[in-house]
Amino acid sequence: MTQGPKRSAARIGVSRHESGKWDRRQDSVAVEEPMEIRLDVPATGGGAAGGGAEGGRAERGRAEIPVSVTMRTPGDDFLLVAGFLFGEGLVGDRRAIVDLRYCRNVSPQEYNVVTVTLRDPIDPASLTRNFYMTSSCGVCGKGSIEAVEVQGCTRLPRGELSLSAASILGMPEQVRAAQAVFEETGGLHAAGLFDAAGTLLDVREDIGRHNAVDKVVGAALLDGRVPLHDHVLAVSGRASFELVQKAVVAGIPALVAVGAPSSLAVDLAERFGMTLVGFVRGAAFNVYAGGERVEGVA
Amino acid sequence: MTQGPKRSAARIGVSRHESGKWDRRQDSVAVEEPMEIRLDVPATGGGAAGGGAEGGRAERGRAEIPVSVTMRTPGDDFLLVAGFLFGEGLVGDRRAIVDLRYCRNVSPQEYNVVTVTLRDPIDPASLTRNFYMTSSCGVCGKGSIEAVEVQGCTRLPRGELSLSAASILGMPEQVRAAQAVFEETGGLHAAGLFDAAGTLLDVREDIGRHNAVDKVVGAALLDGRVPLHDHVLAVSGRASFELVQKAVVAGIPALVAVGAPSSLAVDLAERFGMTLVGFVRGAAFNVYAGGERVEGVA
Repeated sequence: MTQGPKRSAARIGVSRHESGKWDRRQDSVAVEEPMEIRLDVPATGGGAAGGGAEGGRAERGRAEIPVSVTMRTPGDDFLLVAGFLFGEGLVGDRRAIVDLRYCRNVSPQEYNVVTVTLRDPIDPASLTRNFYMTSSCGVCGKGSIEAVEVQGCTRLPRGELSLSAASILGMPEQVRAAQAVFEETGGLHAAGLFDAAGTLLDVREDIGRHNAVDKVVGAALLDGRVPLHDHVLAVSGRASFELVQKAVVAGIPALVAVGAPSSLAVDLAERFGMTLVGFVRGAAFNVYAGGERVEGVA
Repeated sequence: MTQGPKRSAARIGVSRHESGKWDRRQDSVAVEEPMEIRLDVPATGGGAAGGGAEGGRAERGRAEIPVSVTMRTPGDDFLLVAGFLFGEGLVGDRRAIVDLRYCRNVSPQEYNVVTVTLRDPIDPASLTRNFYMTSSCGVCGKGSIEAVEVQGCTRLPRGELSLSAASILGMPEQVRAAQAVFEETGGLHAAGLFDAAGTLLDVREDIGRHNAVDKVVGAALLDGRVPLHDHVLAVSGRASFELVQKAVVAGIPALVAVGAPSSLAVDLAERFGMTLVGFVRGAAFNVYAGGERVEGVA
């Protein structure tokens, strides 16, 4: 399970215009590259591996199934894959994943194809119905509106979590301080996981908000720490439906976003009993749902 | 072709914390709702409609195929659908689209299911291979890395476009001024289309950057104005691979982004001869590719 190199920022030459003057300089941009996810699963049905087995990876009784391509910032790739599969309901816990590896004979895409060996077979029909049509965005690409619903999740337990205003106000700054690459490129989102005491446990970055969250959840999954009851997820951008959905699946009862939430994010948070905080700016923030976990709330 | 109501912002009650004080107030959030796209196409093969025909819409010799669900801000839905299908290569010009309509008997999702009647049949295999696995993000969800390449597009012609620094610097402000809802919710992206003289021709908003671009391109497609040579696309956020890809497909030779570009956005712009400008802030901006269309560039 050796991960590929982190390649978060790339240096490129740009022509800079400022107040009427031009110059030529080096600039950093956030790295964006495609990553393909393949499943290596026990074949179902009549014994032989089904379609999709390719190249040297096909084995007797196993099938390799290409699942999805996501644009991501290289680094923490296995965490991203684990979190993505968990969010899609294809992996329920750490034990479901036998191995994660790069498919190395795919030049020039070395480190951009990850194969996940799963312990159990996958129902091909459910894969086609629920997953092939699904993107890493969690929502777009699904085949029907019904598929957008959060599958099999129940209302989050009230738990012990109690957030002070000071704790909430400090979270974005803690994430930002731990986020090295944003300062350099201005182009990376971050997700941070906090415990109930407001201690920052993990920060992951990616050009996609949903990927940063998948990396945080994937790290917790591979450590055997999901569901993440009594934790807080803080994100650098806005709170959309997909981010609330991923938090619900991971059992996280509170989401703190620097930016604005969407209408559907608020609806979903209310439906699942999640605390949703947004617009954390300076000394102010808004509580959109689940105020029972915020101390002194009006 | 009567479109559903624009529902860009929703009013909700929030608990506001500011400098140690709490109060209860009304706030506006950007509306996010799922929209399902279905194709109504002439059936291929043995005469009868293939699988997928459902409910009252099935007709002799035609098939209805659910294609995708995207999260979007309601409004300009038919433009979004047209632009999305164009970006995915399923619709080449205005004449390919016979009709756009809502599927009205899908309560409570009225105005959230759009059926597109296409003139020509669709090859089901190509749909499965290139499209079912595709999301409205243009990239994530595709079944393999090969599918991420921009299909069938050639290098953009040099054309007559010549952008002054003043023109570039003024674009974000023009888009912002025309973008009513952002000010209210802080949650909507915008895409603006400019002609070669720097005149703003169209602005569309959506909670998703890619959707705002699809709406602009879809409006041009339905007006018979693509390819959009000698036009400029200005976007409110960052420039990712997917936005450059959509501009390439629409033939737009210049993309101006308020935010940062990704590494792959720069690569793609260089490969297709597109002018890519980013970080337009105050009196400054960077030219990342295609400087030949920018006056006085260093």
